[in-house]
Amino acid sequence: MTTHEILLKTQEGKQALSLADGATKTRALEYMAESLLENAESILAANAQDMEAARGHISEVMLDRLFLDQERVDGMADGIRQAAALPDPAGRVLDRVERPNGLIIEKVAVPMGVVAIIYESRPNVTSDAAALAVKSGNACILRCGRESWRSCHAIVNAMGQGLERAGLPASAVSLIEDTSHDSGTELMTANGLVDLLIPRGGAGLIRACVENATVPCIQTGTGICHVYVDKDADLAKALRIIENAKTQRPSVCNAEEVCLVHQDVAAAFLPMLHEKLVTERQTAGLVPVELRLDERAAAIIPGVPAGERDFDTEFLDYILAVAVVPDAESAISHIARHSTKHSDAIVTENPDTAARFTAQVDSAAVYVNASTRFTDGGVFGLGCEMGISTQKLHARGPMGLEELCSYKYVIHGDGQIR
Amino acid sequence: MTTHEILLKTQEGKQALSLADGATKTRALEYMAESLLENAESILAANAQDMEAARGHISEVMLDRLFLDQERVDGMADGIRQAAALPDPAGRVLDRVERPNGLIIEKVAVPMGVVAIIYESRPNVTSDAAALAVKSGNACILRCGRESWRSCHAIVNAMGQGLERAGLPASAVSLIEDTSHDSGTELMTANGLVDLLIPRGGAGLIRACVENATVPCIQTGTGICHVYVDKDADLAKALRIIENAKTQRPSVCNAEEVCLVHQDVAAAFLPMLHEKLVTERQTAGLVPVELRLDERAAAIIPGVPAGERDFDTEFLDYILAVAVVPDAESAISHIARHSTKHSDAIVTENPDTAARFTAQVDSAAVYVNASTRFTDGGVFGLGCEMGISTQKLHARGPMGLEELCSYKYVIHGDGQIR
Repeated sequence: MTTHEILLKTQEGKQALSLADGATKTRALEYMAESLLENAESILAANAQDMEAARGHISEVMLDRLFLDQERVDGMADGIRQAAALPDPAGRVLDRVERPNGLIIEKVAVPMGVVAIIYESRPNVTSDAAALAVKSGNACILRCGRESWRSCHAIVNAMGQGLERAGLPASAVSLIEDTSHDSGTELMTANGLVDLLIPRGGAGLIRACVENATVPCIQTGTGICHVYVDKDADLAKALRIIENAKTQRPSVCNAEEVCLVHQDVAAAFLPMLHEKLVTERQTAGLVPVELRLDERAAAIIPGVPAGERDFDTEFLDYILAVAVVPDAESAISHIARHSTKHSDAIVTENPDTAARFTAQVDSAAVYVNASTRFTDGGVFGLGCEMGISTQKLHARGPMGLEELCSYKYVIHGDGQIR
Repeated sequence: MTTHEILLKTQEGKQALSLADGATKTRALEYMAESLLENAESILAANAQDMEAARGHISEVMLDRLFLDQERVDGMADGIRQAAALPDPAGRVLDRVERPNGLIIEKVAVPMGVVAIIYESRPNVTSDAAALAVKSGNACILRCGRESWRSCHAIVNAMGQGLERAGLPASAVSLIEDTSHDSGTELMTANGLVDLLIPRGGAGLIRACVENATVPCIQTGTGICHVYVDKDADLAKALRIIENAKTQRPSVCNAEEVCLVHQDVAAAFLPMLHEKLVTERQTAGLVPVELRLDERAAAIIPGVPAGERDFDTEFLDYILAVAVVPDAESAISHIARHSTKHSDAIVTENPDTAARFTAQVDSAAVYVNASTRFTDGGVFGLGCEMGISTQKLHARGPMGLEELCSYKYVIHGDGQIR
């Protein structure tokens, strides 16, 4: 089917889901998980074809992301079942006003309608995204990367069988067949047919959406996260936080990319930082962190001189840009200029400085004395995560089921007029 | 100043407001109201110039919208004072999670930052919008129509004196000097400098924003509102509701434009409708409603044959498009195709049909047995209104102070790592 045909077909799924009650949606997810396991063989066969076609064309890291085995398929089914167990976000009465004239005005959470997700090559995003969409009463349109198309197609087929077993149309979860740029552009401009577009991918995809999307869109994921070590920091705490934020899992969006250090503590702290991230890791046989230093930091510890772009790059690697700043205000304004508004932290024992930092840093998550790595739907109590919004409209930070809903006002009267 | 210089300058206002506490913002509004009254003379003089320049170039209705006298200036000051008395929406703790590791995660309402409003010629929008923006902690950039520029400039000047009296920079409320299309386009694409754009105007402006805006934007206002008279309707109730929704104030966005009637009651109801909206009004010396009828309605009552566009037009006038539909499902799907998702109503005594209608009609406000005219921030309990959103992302329906806020997660720890 063409992308346009799929867009039209998904409207049926939207309609059916808008009428489905919570029990039906939960049952649909359970059947989707069941069907995924029943179809494991064909999913793994499709994945083997994807792997064979991709080998030599994409990196080992990317190949690993693409790869599926029985354990990973089991994990996908588990993920769907976890979503099934979450409370139904749709239909919640968010507010209720009874007017003197007897009019009853309820503000009720409702699904967005059709959620489109553009992603890359991880097949498990297919089942995760579909599960969260259906659980929240949304039909979804998935547009995966070329490399994983056969795998995703097999997964969507399996989930479609589960949906039908629950009495819902398979069109509630659709996979775009065209994996060229054209289909992405078509989704971005499918006004009236896509109620929410969530791009999950690199900076290029996000930028393309910001520039081209005429449908409602949520920017996700890019994280140039800062940790600022204040003059009133507990330096041992700062060191522990930065080591964690930088090295525990450098490839994720909530990992630290930039360290800012107050000039009063730079001479004391930077050598500790170098020791922990470079020397100790080398001694332990771990990948040392490459420190990219501004001039003032370079006067204190060895490292690579930072280029201007180093403070605007999401390294996703064992690289840390380091700058010395004259005061907290400068740190805050550096963050205002360079942050992607994802997660930024201050390390300080001074509550006034901390309060100024949390008030002025305009990011989804602002930390005092903790690692940026905690920005996560599970940690924040949402139970799941569809991505991390770096915008301020609608949803900010980790997006769970509630963030996949809008609301409407439902007003009951008995002939009231104004 | 150029538009770009104004955009940069407003960032100072944003910064100052992000640090201002509730009492300061309330005081600022009180001073803004006071200063408006003190400057009434110069505001009225500027308005007289606007009126003189506009006379002969715009309609009488538009001239009346543009006109100011002492009473209207008093009304503007009152509006600011009413906003001052509303609760502070920023800083509310929306959610709080304490993790087993001691991490305290708070979800806190925060201002958007800079809100830009593009509007037309009503000078009072200037003070209303500025008051709501400042009250919610947002700096604002106002871009009025050419006709009202002198008036708006005088109003913004007066409000700036009030802001300064409260210790806030006048740049927290800025007026764009260029009233050409260019400045509108510049606001729509001022990424990083405009956090939220609210176009308040006709369909052309809204469309331009949807197509061109790369900054976050909320579509407001256009209302092609439907009232569906079901086969199980109380016809007297239906008549009263339609008379109110169509004729009480036809120029506003929540007025009815389309009436759909179930075929089983069309023969009984349409003559009642004609009698009420045409004959009775003519007899009473009121403007009769022009009925634009589809073929089936035209077979029952006299009227103008409806053209295809009549079911997609916001008349804002004494005109009503009327169609006969075979059943409730057809009414719902007609609304899905033609509604602007503002306010739509069903008149029925059948609770099942009402429930299906409220579930399936995808509009900001869905009414059962009441006039669409109630869609209003005051009626809905918001205390004020910055416009009525017809989109589903972020805010839907009337937007009050809370809808001018985003949120952030503020996380306090004591060295926690993951």
